[in-house]
Amino acid sequence: MSLNTFGHLFRVTTWGESHGPALGATVDGCPPGVPVTQEALQVWLDRRKPGQNKYTTQRREPDAVEILSGVFEGVSTGTPIQLMIRNTDQRSKDYGEIAEKFRPGHADITYWQKYGIRDYRGGGRSSARETAARVAAGGIARAALEKLVPGIAITGCMVQMGPKAIDRARFDADQIAQNPFWCPDAQAAGDWAEYLDGLRKSGDSVGAVIEVTARGVPAGLGAPIYGKLDTDLAAAMMSINAVKGVEIGEGMAAAALTGAENADEISMGPDGPVYGSNHAGGILGGISTGQELVVRFAVKPTSSILTTRRTVTKSGTDAEIVTKGRHDPCVGIRAVPVGEAMMACVILDHLLLDRGQTGGARGAIGGPAR
Amino acid sequence: MSLNTFGHLFRVTTWGESHGPALGATVDGCPPGVPVTQEALQVWLDRRKPGQNKYTTQRREPDAVEILSGVFEGVSTGTPIQLMIRNTDQRSKDYGEIAEKFRPGHADITYWQKYGIRDYRGGGRSSARETAARVAAGGIARAALEKLVPGIAITGCMVQMGPKAIDRARFDADQIAQNPFWCPDAQAAGDWAEYLDGLRKSGDSVGAVIEVTARGVPAGLGAPIYGKLDTDLAAAMMSINAVKGVEIGEGMAAAALTGAENADEISMGPDGPVYGSNHAGGILGGISTGQELVVRFAVKPTSSILTTRRTVTKSGTDAEIVTKGRHDPCVGIRAVPVGEAMMACVILDHLLLDRGQTGGARGAIGGPAR
Amino acid sequence: MSLNTFGHLFRVTTWGESHGPALGATVDGCPPGVPVTQEALQVWLDRRKPGQNKYTTQRREPDAVEILSGVFEGVSTGTPIQLMIRNTDQRSKDYGEIAEKFRPGHADITYWQKYGIRDYRGGGRSSARETAARVAAGGIARAALEKLVPGIAITGCMVQMGPKAIDRARFDADQIAQNPFWCPDAQAAGDWAEYLDGLRKSGDSVGAVIEVTARGVPAGLGAPIYGKLDTDLAAAMMSINAVKGVEIGEGMAAAALTGAENADEISMGPDGPVYGSNHAGGILGGISTGQELVVRFAVKPTSSILTTRRTVTKSGTDAEIVTKGRHDPCVGIRAVPVGEAMMACVILDHLLLDRGQTGGARGAIGGPAR
Amino acid sequence: MSLNTFGHLFRVTTWGESHGPALGATVDGCPPGVPVTQEALQVWLDRRKPGQNKYTTQRREPDAVEILSGVFEGVSTGTPIQLMIRNTDQRSKDYGEIAEKFRPGHADITYWQKYGIRDYRGGGRSSARETAARVAAGGIARAALEKLVPGIAITGCMVQMGPKAIDRARFDADQIAQNPFWCPDAQAAGDWAEYLDGLRKSGDSVGAVIEVTARGVPAGLGAPIYGKLDTDLAAAMMSINAVKGVEIGEGMAAAALTGAENADEISMGPDGPVYGSNHAGGILGGISTGQELVVRFAVKPTSSILTTRRTVTKSGTDAEIVTKGRHDPCVGIRAVPVGEAMMACVILDHLLLDRGQTGGARGAIGGPAR
Repeated sequence: MSLNTFGHLFRVTTWGESHGPALGATVDGCPPGVPVTQEALQVWLDRRKPGQNKYTTQRREPDAVEILSGVFEGVSTGTPIQLMIRNTDQRSKDYGEIAEKFRPGHADITYWQKYGIRDYRGGGRSSARETAARVAAGGIARAALEKLVPGIAITGCMVQMGPKAIDRARFDADQIAQNPFWCPDAQAAGDWAEYLDGLRKSGDSVGAVIEVTARGVPAGLGAPIYGKLDTDLAAAMMSINAVKGVEIGEGMAAAALTGAENADEISMGPDGPVYGSNHAGGILGGISTGQELVVRFAVKPTSSILTTRRTVTKSGTDAEIVTKGRHDPCVGIRAVPVGEAMMACVILDHLLLDRGQTGGARGAIGGPAR
Repeated sequence: MSLNTFGHLFRVTTWGESHGPALGATVDGCPPGVPVTQEALQVWLDRRKPGQNKYTTQRREPDAVEILSGVFEGVSTGTPIQLMIRNTDQRSKDYGEIAEKFRPGHADITYWQKYGIRDYRGGGRSSARETAARVAAGGIARAALEKLVPGIAITGCMVQMGPKAIDRARFDADQIAQNPFWCPDAQAAGDWAEYLDGLRKSGDSVGAVIEVTARGVPAGLGAPIYGKLDTDLAAAMMSINAVKGVEIGEGMAAAALTGAENADEISMGPDGPVYGSNHAGGILGGISTGQELVVRFAVKPTSSILTTRRTVTKSGTDAEIVTKGRHDPCVGIRAVPVGEAMMACVILDHLLLDRGQTGGARGAIGGPAR
Repeated sequence: MSLNTFGHLFRVTTWGESHGPALGATVDGCPPGVPVTQEALQVWLDRRKPGQNKYTTQRREPDAVEILSGVFEGVSTGTPIQLMIRNTDQRSKDYGEIAEKFRPGHADITYWQKYGIRDYRGGGRSSARETAARVAAGGIARAALEKLVPGIAITGCMVQMGPKAIDRARFDADQIAQNPFWCPDAQAAGDWAEYLDGLRKSGDSVGAVIEVTARGVPAGLGAPIYGKLDTDLAAAMMSINAVKGVEIGEGMAAAALTGAENADEISMGPDGPVYGSNHAGGILGGISTGQELVVRFAVKPTSSILTTRRTVTKSGTDAEIVTKGRHDPCVGIRAVPVGEAMMACVILDHLLLDRGQTGGARGAIGGPAR
Repeated sequence: MSLNTFGHLFRVTTWGESHGPALGATVDGCPPGVPVTQEALQVWLDRRKPGQNKYTTQRREPDAVEILSGVFEGVSTGTPIQLMIRNTDQRSKDYGEIAEKFRPGHADITYWQKYGIRDYRGGGRSSARETAARVAAGGIARAALEKLVPGIAITGCMVQMGPKAIDRARFDADQIAQNPFWCPDAQAAGDWAEYLDGLRKSGDSVGAVIEVTARGVPAGLGAPIYGKLDTDLAAAMMSINAVKGVEIGEGMAAAALTGAENADEISMGPDGPVYGSNHAGGILGGISTGQELVVRFAVKPTSSILTTRRTVTKSGTDAEIVTKGRHDPCVGIRAVPVGEAMMACVILDHLLLDRGQTGGARGAIGGPAR
């Protein structure tokens, strides 16, 4: 059962609505002995926090995380860690109209159809605010990974905004933190700023493609057949609000390649096998190869826009709607730290799972079994 | 835990290797009273069966399914249904060389690294033969859906082979069964035949994009947040061998749209809300809208090719490899019935889950609650 | 995975330690439309609350529950319900000595051996305070059952304290709320009061047997083979702190019966089959018969006693220990509402599961299928 | 979801009915590198096999197990192991009458009420024949334990038949294999033989208590709070057919003890802490102490008896029934190897889980952390 929970051994259950008293995550399965502090988690949350610049929602929430359990003297004990974030700037008055009208592109109508009841003060449970809880949980996963796999590096960035993709030749990881878009291509970032300003002013929005990579992941992680590393990454990313597509390595473009082009040739390096390319995105047969993990996902444009759209009401009459409120013109921007958090959770989960399944032992290549 | 199992309430556990005595699926959670016969399941298996034309592996297996439990007098009893398919044409002599050398693009190296032991007679557990078990299980899911949601229609087709996409203007569902590629565009099918012949003769292979749709799915299916309908579909499709990308509705292209373009406007029809478009692919907030479900996935080119490629051996020396044997030049072809089977399983699973969660009750739009 | 979670579709995850900031329960899978208020939950919590009489710990906590999510305008929405109880009277100074010495009968030593770190301020995660969260979750289960199965009645009582069992001939359900022991036999209750006073004054403690019954449970609940109703009840009760044995119906005494004695004969009543006896405790083959469910469990004596006992320290030296602090002389008393809560959760879970598995349809006996 | 599956990481799904073509177990999560052969598994199955003496059913089945997957060259590969046992001596003609009449004490009526369909040729899915699959799976668990925890010893025996308990002073483990009852008390075994002969001739049956112990289990296994070692053992044993009670250590008798009596005092031995007694049955707070694990369970008398009993028919009329056929007068006898198998599965599962959760690291007592 994975309704509000994801993960096998590192299990994260999120809870809470956008306009209730609080939201959070119950993190079960963090190994004992991992340093966990509110300060360290806050760093990650601040990267996702709204209201930081004109490109994200002007809702101003400190998103301050409280640790309610599972940590003793700054260190995880192996028991569930409860993370709580109070909702403070809810302004539910902005949301009056949508109690009756379903906003196109939002989950208003489907939640209503499924449950027959809906917290209509904003997105409720389907709001992207839920991802704050993921980012907090991801902070714990990162801390555990740092302890168990020193040197592992998980990095997200935006590689396309609307129709405008970055130029891979200009990819510079150092640029990512230098602009409000987590964009690795400085020139594209400038271009996007202008483009998004225009959209924002016209009350429109736009989609994006996010790429998340992980370096230093050991070979052997992944639990075939239905708990493959790529299967779990696909599920993790697709579960993020507004995501409509997920790719591993070559992704959809793999369809256009021939077998000869797509083969990642292998040769022997000083520390084991090395690959001449990484079309596979670091995963073969659902198991990590030791290469860089590469995942991309597409985020649809924010559905809350100022353009008038046709819809229906709960009573079944046709209507028009304009979604006012404080909304991100490109919700993809804040999806970057969320994608990183999901990547961290999935890798940690599979690291623990692999220890459970195989003891973490490895078949040797050119040497004794590790 | 979902290692060799998928599904929440309709749970399918597959087992078996390509060159062992048999493979199969343990299907737990089929509702009682569903007609299940070997003949009906065989129809679905025959669609995936190898050796049917020159475009699929020449391995000739009857893929005859046996029902070992869970069915009494032709009807499911609610207990686990065990489906077994004997392996009959194994020719493991073809696979001698790969006991030592890892085939690029295959899971040989990662299974070895993870487990330290590997059934080197073919792909073993990572072989696409495992998907025969999925198709058999999917046949049961279809029969259950037919009983519970009469009129539901699940259809897969290939919409791109290598760089050659179909022309959507020529999409004709009746064409799908008329060519060996499950191609809905007769002209593209002819084109592909010539193209694939060339690749096959040169010993190369190519990727593909598969599209699976479902009509007649009720609104309200899907279990937010981590058991969303799209999340489970993404996981289901990504778990299929060689899949590198999954899209729902607009998919990766959603990134390039504006909010105004992407909004699926709603109006009131005689039987409830109707949508002016379906960018969402039939899912909002992880819950079905009642529109057509649309999923696409990319299959990478078959990794077993006659082109020489560089690799390493278990003992850690550099080597070259040519993968002989009987392989599909476009493994995507046989992925079509597999994608359909996964779609059927996921929809049935969520139908049962929804009954469990909500009793299947629905919030009314313009009328009393059902 | 059920580490800090129990249930299939109605899933309760508890979190928190006895001396941390708070503890609580994440309740996932409550159907929509169930009335849930803090006032109603508080009623159940107050039954378990410490400090109510001289027979329970003098720790004084209001055990006030806060609902942080999943409820809108007093009604469940189908999303996770987060219940939080702040710890307020922790007096951790009482617990100084046990940072070094392991208390016999407690989980101090095993938590240390497992995790290598331990919140030594009391029982931490293994404290019976965790059961407050269960009682809160059980309150939600009861509210849902009331809606879905009107008239269902779940009742717990203590049937044995130390060596002193009740006299079944004097069993009077109305007595249960009339004494501090939840004892259905007024005479036994008087006897126990005197007995327990003596034990309390001598700094000793004693065990107990609790019985929990449920009337009005529909036939057909239970998910064979490994999710049987009795299997899940056994797990639920055994998971309660200090429980060492669980019985269904006749329980351990069934071993001494002959088949002729043990058979619950069936005859036809006006509303369906009726049984001449209930040795089975309301469950056959893991599925409810419609009779009263009967579960008993034994609670060992409180391990925290004033009698000196031999133990070892973390550094591996022999030592003696006397466990001061405020402890229940018979922890079984407060296990009564906990057992009721677990019963409510398991029944609701199986009711939902049955709807998911079979649609809740029933085979008819002497009439058309319902 | 644990419907036909048990275990967290070592997961066993059983399937099959008593009178279908076959039954078996899908064993997922066996670590790689474990020796698994049909011969070794057969040894365990032969201990449970019917028809071995006059005290067990005269149904004669070879119960020959086939390994269909997951094993390569005699060693587990880490992929699912499919075990199949063909049903060969079904004689379904014996079972004609029970198509219409429900046998008291059997699951006939509840399966019918739940599913509205029932394989009436014997117990179907609820038959004790299902336990053959558990014993086969338990054989794999034993082999894995032997590799991972050399020296571990799991032993079951019968300690009570009907009202006749063994004399603990005469307990001699060497006697267990010397009589048809797995009885450790030679004198009791003689007594039981006479007693059971009488019952068998009169067409009656009787219950029993089984005790299963495990020596050499490392400290630290168990996953609090809802995956406690004792919780999982209780569930495992209660899931066995006809079991009505489960005890850990002192069990139900713990209720009668005082805290001073019940405390297992600890002192320092040469290899770590040692305990002066084992009232706890080797488990504190759900985690193993390193002492002997002690579990007991009560099996009710066989419900199939020659004594006439009242019942009802499917059409709702009163009737009488005598259950002919070949039945064990004391089904508890064959529950001994089943209990051992469940113990082995649970211990292995928790060993793997502990590696996943904590890496198997241990807090040190009187020495450096292991």
